[in-house]
Amino acid sequence: MPRTAVIAGVGPGLGESIARKFADEGCSVGLFARSEDYLDELAADLPGEALAVPTDLTDPDAIRAGFDAVREDLGPVDVLVNHASAGSWKGLLDASVEEFERAFHVNGRGAFVCSQEAVSDMLGQEGRGAEADQDDEAGGTIIFTGATSAVRGREGAIGFSAAKFAARGMAESMAREFGPEGVHVAHVVVDGQIRTPQARESDRPAHEFFDPDEIAETYWHLVEQDRSAWTLELDLRPHVEEF
Amino acid sequence: MPRTAVIAGVGPGLGESIARKFADEGCSVGLFARSEDYLDELAADLPGEALAVPTDLTDPDAIRAGFDAVREDLGPVDVLVNHASAGSWKGLLDASVEEFERAFHVNGRGAFVCSQEAVSDMLGQEGRGAEADQDDEAGGTIIFTGATSAVRGREGAIGFSAAKFAARGMAESMAREFGPEGVHVAHVVVDGQIRTPQARESDRPAHEFFDPDEIAETYWHLVEQDRSAWTLELDLRPHVEEF
Amino acid sequence: MPRTAVIAGVGPGLGESIARKFADEGCSVGLFARSEDYLDELAADLPGEALAVPTDLTDPDAIRAGFDAVREDLGPVDVLVNHASAGSWKGLLDASVEEFERAFHVNGRGAFVCSQEAVSDMLGQEGRGAEADQDDEAGGTIIFTGATSAVRGREGAIGFSAAKFAARGMAESMAREFGPEGVHVAHVVVDGQIRTPQARESDRPAHEFFDPDEIAETYWHLVEQDRSAWTLELDLRPHVEEF
Amino acid sequence: MPRTAVIAGVGPGLGESIARKFADEGCSVGLFARSEDYLDELAADLPGEALAVPTDLTDPDAIRAGFDAVREDLGPVDVLVNHASAGSWKGLLDASVEEFERAFHVNGRGAFVCSQEAVSDMLGQEGRGAEADQDDEAGGTIIFTGATSAVRGREGAIGFSAAKFAARGMAESMAREFGPEGVHVAHVVVDGQIRTPQARESDRPAHEFFDPDEIAETYWHLVEQDRSAWTLELDLRPHVEEF
Repeated sequence: MPRTAVIAGVGPGLGESIARKFADEGCSVGLFARSEDYLDELAADLPGEALAVPTDLTDPDAIRAGFDAVREDLGPVDVLVNHASAGSWKGLLDASVEEFERAFHVNGRGAFVCSQEAVSDMLGQEGRGAEADQDDEAGGTIIFTGATSAVRGREGAIGFSAAKFAARGMAESMAREFGPEGVHVAHVVVDGQIRTPQARESDRPAHEFFDPDEIAETYWHLVEQDRSAWTLELDLRPHVEEF
Repeated sequence: MPRTAVIAGVGPGLGESIARKFADEGCSVGLFARSEDYLDELAADLPGEALAVPTDLTDPDAIRAGFDAVREDLGPVDVLVNHASAGSWKGLLDASVEEFERAFHVNGRGAFVCSQEAVSDMLGQEGRGAEADQDDEAGGTIIFTGATSAVRGREGAIGFSAAKFAARGMAESMAREFGPEGVHVAHVVVDGQIRTPQARESDRPAHEFFDPDEIAETYWHLVEQDRSAWTLELDLRPHVEEF
Repeated sequence: MPRTAVIAGVGPGLGESIARKFADEGCSVGLFARSEDYLDELAADLPGEALAVPTDLTDPDAIRAGFDAVREDLGPVDVLVNHASAGSWKGLLDASVEEFERAFHVNGRGAFVCSQEAVSDMLGQEGRGAEADQDDEAGGTIIFTGATSAVRGREGAIGFSAAKFAARGMAESMAREFGPEGVHVAHVVVDGQIRTPQARESDRPAHEFFDPDEIAETYWHLVEQDRSAWTLELDLRPHVEEF
Repeated sequence: MPRTAVIAGVGPGLGESIARKFADEGCSVGLFARSEDYLDELAADLPGEALAVPTDLTDPDAIRAGFDAVREDLGPVDVLVNHASAGSWKGLLDASVEEFERAFHVNGRGAFVCSQEAVSDMLGQEGRGAEADQDDEAGGTIIFTGATSAVRGREGAIGFSAAKFAARGMAESMAREFGPEGVHVAHVVVDGQIRTPQARESDRPAHEFFDPDEIAETYWHLVEQDRSAWTLELDLRPHVEEF
């Protein structure tokens, strides 16, 4: 089944690896991020259909318009990756209310609106929804990119910790609400540093970093899991990472 | 040592029990909530000093003004209970963005601003802060009232789950940041229903509910814990509660 | 109500502090450990009734005989602290099967047999058991002394990790089984180093260690909690401990 | 790379599905269980090399002899699945010491000895061990089959809860010890009922059960994960399972 996937929060690193993997597996891909130039370039480089959707993920109306554009071009959404992340690394006394709240707007509220849009598609199509049984190709998959700070509040990163915890709580709530209707919700705790273009220039040995393409393999496995055996949460880390 | 305590989010039920217990133990108490009449009545009924602070906890400026009023009347804050809670019990597709966000404004952002104010007092006084050692009567205590939905995202309560998770992440972040400086941060997972005035009229047997006065005993124990042996998290439930 | 308490695994440090605190609060105390001389000295030093019960906690029959001795001298058991701990700090390839298993015999099987004996007493007395309601002085309290390795398997301590996890699983199972009958089961994650006589001679500053008397305060609070608001699990650590 | 895999505790249901999947992917498979007839039949039915190893997993010497047989026939072990499980479903007062301990002997001690044997192989071969870097095809994979009772102690199943917790603690300890050396340790929380031959005859609808072949897909994904992005723990459940 060809699928339409939205990656909300694409950038060089893991977001791009996910987009490439999903496109390689035959997905049409909607790419949401702020940088139009970057998205255009990436969309042009992917095999198959891809739509660049320059979007501010802190703006609910912009998100909704983005999903409309995806539906029109690529069809209803089957897969959503809530991948956007933001948060100043500041402690309680240094963070402003605006900085604290911005982390929540991206990680929490943005994912909330994206999920509303995606679940509507997943439940709304013929053969989907409450009547679906295990033989239908119905429902869909929503993956949240979590972080260590989603399970362990980090000193000096109060807004980020609050926002990543919030997203994990949302993921669990949604998994319980929509699992029986065929929507697979998963939360991935990404514990380690990703080998981004900048990281490649650091002095640390390469094997201390995640290879983002390898993380994307596990994201794809989550999409492919049969509804008879779904994962809600898993962690990922480089083999030398201390934890 | 007489202490000044702020209870942010007081109402009939647990908030009031905490206020009474802390007042009985000699605390001066600042009572934050929206209902002026209720607060005035409660303040008048408490032994010792108590200040009614009618406040909208979704308004950062109102919170700051409230702490100023407490400081002026009762002195710098030693104990804060982040007890306010809000959240419509709606699932992903039924909750509006405003409803989703409101839960975070009360449980998350409100607690963030209250904590900023309280920690400033706790670190700012003579003999407090980074130089404090274990012999000083320095620092303070911040207790978050959590819920089952802080550790297990609840179906059909997405905003509440996100907000209670967020508060737990904040509590952990703050505990790591300020523990070494003498500020004890604790998160209490309150798992069950509290015997409020309304609950007393239900048909369920009384022993299936929390007695809020008994919860308040454990809150006070957290305040009294010596810094040599602090609790970050504990759960509480009635002995017949399933979990 | 005067209570009879068994401390299984007493030694200089936390076990002794718990025994002293409980005796100070009016408990008759049964002291289980291998060293007869040490126990005799401690029993003589406690206020009120205390019974030294030299016991090998890896021997189920010896445990049962010990409880019989306590019953005869001090009456049925109201409080049990499963405090014994053992485990060689070895990794998978260095630990022998015997070493691996010994940790389980002390932390797991020993606590199992002690709990069987104690729960029988707690449920067996008049006014106790299934018919008990919240007004009865029935039931009892069982506290497990856990460790960081009960919630986070430690590298190079495989037997200890397995055994401390096992004890935590037992505690949860027992809490669910006997809570409704009035037996309060609690598991305390003790995360840090305790200021034992040896530790006092180390170069590390005193405030980096637990004061075991302060831990004992929280153990006593657990015993005193009303059944309307019980804690299953809490953590404890010195305020400067990293975690 | 053709791999040698040991499945410790094979039976109709998940164990067999894992064996078939791994054999389909080209593994030579060593099958450990007590029933010789069943193992012979299964071994004959698998594609590629398979060795039936009738073994009592509560007997350390028998386990060691079994691994020797595998090494001789199939070569050093690359993959181990600690899949054996046992435990009477009894509460504290009904379980005997022997029943309590037997659950640990299978889930805990048996997995300990199997892991000793497997890790020795994984570290012992040329190009493996401490010097291995991320380009080597070194190390191996050890998967523990966990259960809900590994993360939530179950009322009325004290021995099983203790044993499954213990295995989870071991898995974490081993992951931290051997991850840097290239051994991937993973713990799978299997939360639900598996569609075994008996379950197929029940009245419950098929989609309420796990399809064990689908669980096996995720086990294989864990084997295939690149060391740059390993999972320590994931859960699995049927999409309609309440949790």
